[in-house]
Amino acid sequence: MPIYRAPTDDIQYILNDVLQIEKYNNLPGFEDLSPDLLKAILEEGGKLAENVLQPLNQSGDAEGCTRHEDGSVTTPKGFKDAYKQYIEGGWQGVTSDPEYGGQGLPYILGIALEEMCVSANHSFNMYPGLTSGVIASLSIAGTDEQKQKYLTKLISGEWAGTMNLTEPHCGTDLGMMRTKAEPQADGSYKITGTKIFISAGEHDLTDNIIHMVLAKIPDGPDGVKGISLFLVPKVNVNDDGSLGDRNGVVCGSIEEKMGIHGNSTCLLNYEEATGYLIGEEHRGLAPMFIMMNAARIGVGVQGLSASEVAYQNAADYARDRLQGRSISGVKNPDGPADPIIVHPDVRRMLMDTKAFNESARALALWMGILVDQSRKSPVEEDRKKSEELAGLITPVLKGVLTDLGYQNATNCQQVLGGHGYIKEWGMEQFVRDARIAMIYEGANGIQALDLVGRKLAQNGGAAIRTYFEELDTFISDNDNDDMAEFNASLKAATDDLKAATMWLMQNAVGNPDNAGAASTSYMHLMGLVALGHMWGKMAATSLQKLADGAENADFHKNKLITARYFFKRMITDTSAHLKKIEVGADVMMDLPADAF
Amino acid sequence: MPIYRAPTDDIQYILNDVLQIEKYNNLPGFEDLSPDLLKAILEEGGKLAENVLQPLNQSGDAEGCTRHEDGSVTTPKGFKDAYKQYIEGGWQGVTSDPEYGGQGLPYILGIALEEMCVSANHSFNMYPGLTSGVIASLSIAGTDEQKQKYLTKLISGEWAGTMNLTEPHCGTDLGMMRTKAEPQADGSYKITGTKIFISAGEHDLTDNIIHMVLAKIPDGPDGVKGISLFLVPKVNVNDDGSLGDRNGVVCGSIEEKMGIHGNSTCLLNYEEATGYLIGEEHRGLAPMFIMMNAARIGVGVQGLSASEVAYQNAADYARDRLQGRSISGVKNPDGPADPIIVHPDVRRMLMDTKAFNESARALALWMGILVDQSRKSPVEEDRKKSEELAGLITPVLKGVLTDLGYQNATNCQQVLGGHGYIKEWGMEQFVRDARIAMIYEGANGIQALDLVGRKLAQNGGAAIRTYFEELDTFISDNDNDDMAEFNASLKAATDDLKAATMWLMQNAVGNPDNAGAASTSYMHLMGLVALGHMWGKMAATSLQKLADGAENADFHKNKLITARYFFKRMITDTSAHLKKIEVGADVMMDLPADAF
Repeated sequence: MPIYRAPTDDIQYILNDVLQIEKYNNLPGFEDLSPDLLKAILEEGGKLAENVLQPLNQSGDAEGCTRHEDGSVTTPKGFKDAYKQYIEGGWQGVTSDPEYGGQGLPYILGIALEEMCVSANHSFNMYPGLTSGVIASLSIAGTDEQKQKYLTKLISGEWAGTMNLTEPHCGTDLGMMRTKAEPQADGSYKITGTKIFISAGEHDLTDNIIHMVLAKIPDGPDGVKGISLFLVPKVNVNDDGSLGDRNGVVCGSIEEKMGIHGNSTCLLNYEEATGYLIGEEHRGLAPMFIMMNAARIGVGVQGLSASEVAYQNAADYARDRLQGRSISGVKNPDGPADPIIVHPDVRRMLMDTKAFNESARALALWMGILVDQSRKSPVEEDRKKSEELAGLITPVLKGVLTDLGYQNATNCQQVLGGHGYIKEWGMEQFVRDARIAMIYEGANGIQALDLVGRKLAQNGGAAIRTYFEELDTFISDNDNDDMAEFNASLKAATDDLKAATMWLMQNAVGNPDNAGAASTSYMHLMGLVALGHMWGKMAATSLQKLADGAENADFHKNKLITARYFFKRMITDTSAHLKKIEVGADVMMDLPADAF
Repeated sequence: MPIYRAPTDDIQYILNDVLQIEKYNNLPGFEDLSPDLLKAILEEGGKLAENVLQPLNQSGDAEGCTRHEDGSVTTPKGFKDAYKQYIEGGWQGVTSDPEYGGQGLPYILGIALEEMCVSANHSFNMYPGLTSGVIASLSIAGTDEQKQKYLTKLISGEWAGTMNLTEPHCGTDLGMMRTKAEPQADGSYKITGTKIFISAGEHDLTDNIIHMVLAKIPDGPDGVKGISLFLVPKVNVNDDGSLGDRNGVVCGSIEEKMGIHGNSTCLLNYEEATGYLIGEEHRGLAPMFIMMNAARIGVGVQGLSASEVAYQNAADYARDRLQGRSISGVKNPDGPADPIIVHPDVRRMLMDTKAFNESARALALWMGILVDQSRKSPVEEDRKKSEELAGLITPVLKGVLTDLGYQNATNCQQVLGGHGYIKEWGMEQFVRDARIAMIYEGANGIQALDLVGRKLAQNGGAAIRTYFEELDTFISDNDNDDMAEFNASLKAATDDLKAATMWLMQNAVGNPDNAGAASTSYMHLMGLVALGHMWGKMAATSLQKLADGAENADFHKNKLITARYFFKRMITDTSAHLKKIEVGADVMMDLPADAF
């Protein structure tokens, strides 16, 4: 049976010491967030993850969800009770608006909790995760009446939510959408069409499910300019808030998938279902993208979650498994063999993963600060800068953390040898579950294209300039002897990122395929710089802590060892990415389509 | 439903044009292998793969194997009939000794057939694949009597075979083995113990299964020097060759695994089972390693197989799926959208895979020639040189082809977006099945250690020197204008490999952990050089064909486009591997074990 230990110490180190969140106590939600309260919340969330969610992870995978003839869906044994504990603990509304029953804590805290819950049980966490997306868009784009009617019950977790974009013939290209919304005399719409791949689309955890559905109002503009967003309750809601009749939406089937078996991925048939317009007609993509952006950060965190839980189990195995002897001399003379953690190649897989996990966690939490600042800072300049950076880094967080999360889960599975392939040990589930995060909420290739095709160019390149300033400032601020070994590598990587950016500016305008050809390499190059930036911050923090005579000196020494590994063996891949970028598109466009 | 098209044209191009197998017609088995006969065999094998094996791949995965209370195991529906067709076609004995009923065709042809059969149905092919391993070891280490009694029926496929190494507490470290073999008065042994992870360990395809079992004779030497190899039939065989009583070996359970569900992975309980010594007492590892080496080449080919079938399905999808428009202008104006193959990032995933597949195929077949030469060449010098090269490259073939095969299968799955995650489309099965190849027959970390710890050093580095001569000769022979673009990249990569080898010579003797720390990077560096060597050969071949006015000019032009992609975007990663190697072991050994 796999284990999970919530990394609350490391999260506190990042929040308190590295990102110094007390600096932000002028922002709403941060005022009362003392280190003690933070610790209490994280430990409580960690217990939920360890004791309630994790024990259901393997059984949920084995059992999966069951669709019945009437279209109803039963979640795996134990999920309903766990969900009850989840909402009774108030976890659904931790970061939501207090006006509608939320606790109003910072978004950054939601990221920390998300990491732990997904590590413990990816499938389970998708149910409240989708609800969070609906809460986010409704909070911003819903009318007061809509908020009163739906938001409170979503924030309490009494009801759940979903996002409905994909149709059988269209995923990325939403302009091809066919689902129709016919306006009715009472101001509502009748929604008809088929949506697929709807995560948490039907289940037995809540009495109602609020579907957010993209559809086209007849005679509207063609393509994406004619898409509107609708709220479609599974069960109609009476004016007094009580539940009325079933609405015209039914789960037609659930998909058999590679993983996340505990979550029901539904095909939903809408037949004249009553829907309510969210925002304006034909302007449905904007509020959907509010949801999508929040969801993309969340999905990036899922890559970290998989990597962390896989790592913990691989590290335990490597310490326990006695097999062979160290090539540099016996290390465990009293045992029949040495533990396999003595082998450098086993450590390589563990160190790659550890160095990723700790910096990915810092990057996700830094992103949390950016989002909080962009929403809440009283200083316009700060809001603008944070929004720019968050927008730029969101696709990197999603694409890089999920690509590397999967790769790390695979490597950690490898540490267990043959046992890694056997279901009982749980490692292969981490790999199967992690795989989805590279695909949903915009496949990683789409993230890379969003980065090079939109985010880099927006506002004349303002975001990337802001980011380079941030990096340059960090590098020059840390131009000292103790930091030199780390700083030099970070500077070299940043220079590679600048060179790649320059190459794109010079070569992508005349031939846009050059941007497409470079996109994934550019995203991963920026990912390494972004993780390196975090390792720089952590190294500087831990050096200072050691200089100040911190009590937990070993913790900080180990941070420096891990930072060194990252800067010596991992960030150096930026030059390989740069080389690929500079090759350009021709080599991949020359082959005729029928020659593949 | 996934498709599979046997790549017989590409195999013929490699065998006839690139490797020019007619040059070897002085070797036994090659004499009559005209291009026409070769074509006939490959096309017949291709039909078997496409029409008999591939249709059972998805259903076999869904159904899996079933163990009954008496320990018997039923394979998935259709496997028994397919196996009948397989052996009736004589496929089990294609490359085996004619004296025992084999067809005596070259080993290289077995590799080509293996690739196709595994692409079509990995799980199915493991049944005859394990038998081939037993045939290989018995052919070399068995007595005449043992050969008469068992080999004929293994070669005909009437009986199947297995390899039994692993025990619950020992996999890589065979010295810890506990299975006992008690000598009996009649010269046989009584075998008692538990073996795990036994592929094809029990099934209903054949009336008998011949287990090759490693065990310890009491009071023998400690560790691996006390291991002997035994032949243990599932059903005892009478002197007249008829079947007698059941022997004392029973399948105790079958494993639930990530993939290869159509193959039964068994725990086998041996209780005083009658076994017969193969080779000498306490010298069991040598004949087992004959099996292992053949098996490692076969497993490397499995990486190619997964990559090829995943590629074919991804390429078809990319040509068919209409979604979005090309960023460099509409390419399919009459359709609602462009096929996604217009997108450079989709092509990146396909080109990475195609450029790997074609060179991995060439490398595997070149390995086949080396093995055939090492066994059959009349010139001692050729035998020696081929054996050295085959020994050196076997771990690279196993480790690199399976690592990249899995990575490519994952990328091809990505091409399908959400559909890639759904079982129905078959892509996720390719990924799950491909995953095992990185683990079994020696996890890839063990391959890397075999390469840097044994193969490099053997005979004072003779093998790597021979390999460098081979590379240098190719590079200087092709020092011409047409080849310059390819040759320069191959030379740069070869220089990186030489630098890495030099670094190991200078740094691994004093600190063996430096070899361990460098091992996986070194293996992948050599893998890129080896694939580049094959691309060099293919580029030179196709340039010549075009100069000669070949009829299928497009085929050769596309080879050059793919070669260009490999040399511009893929082989350049050698420098990143070299950088990691030169970092040394300290960065990964410094962290205390309890800090992971």
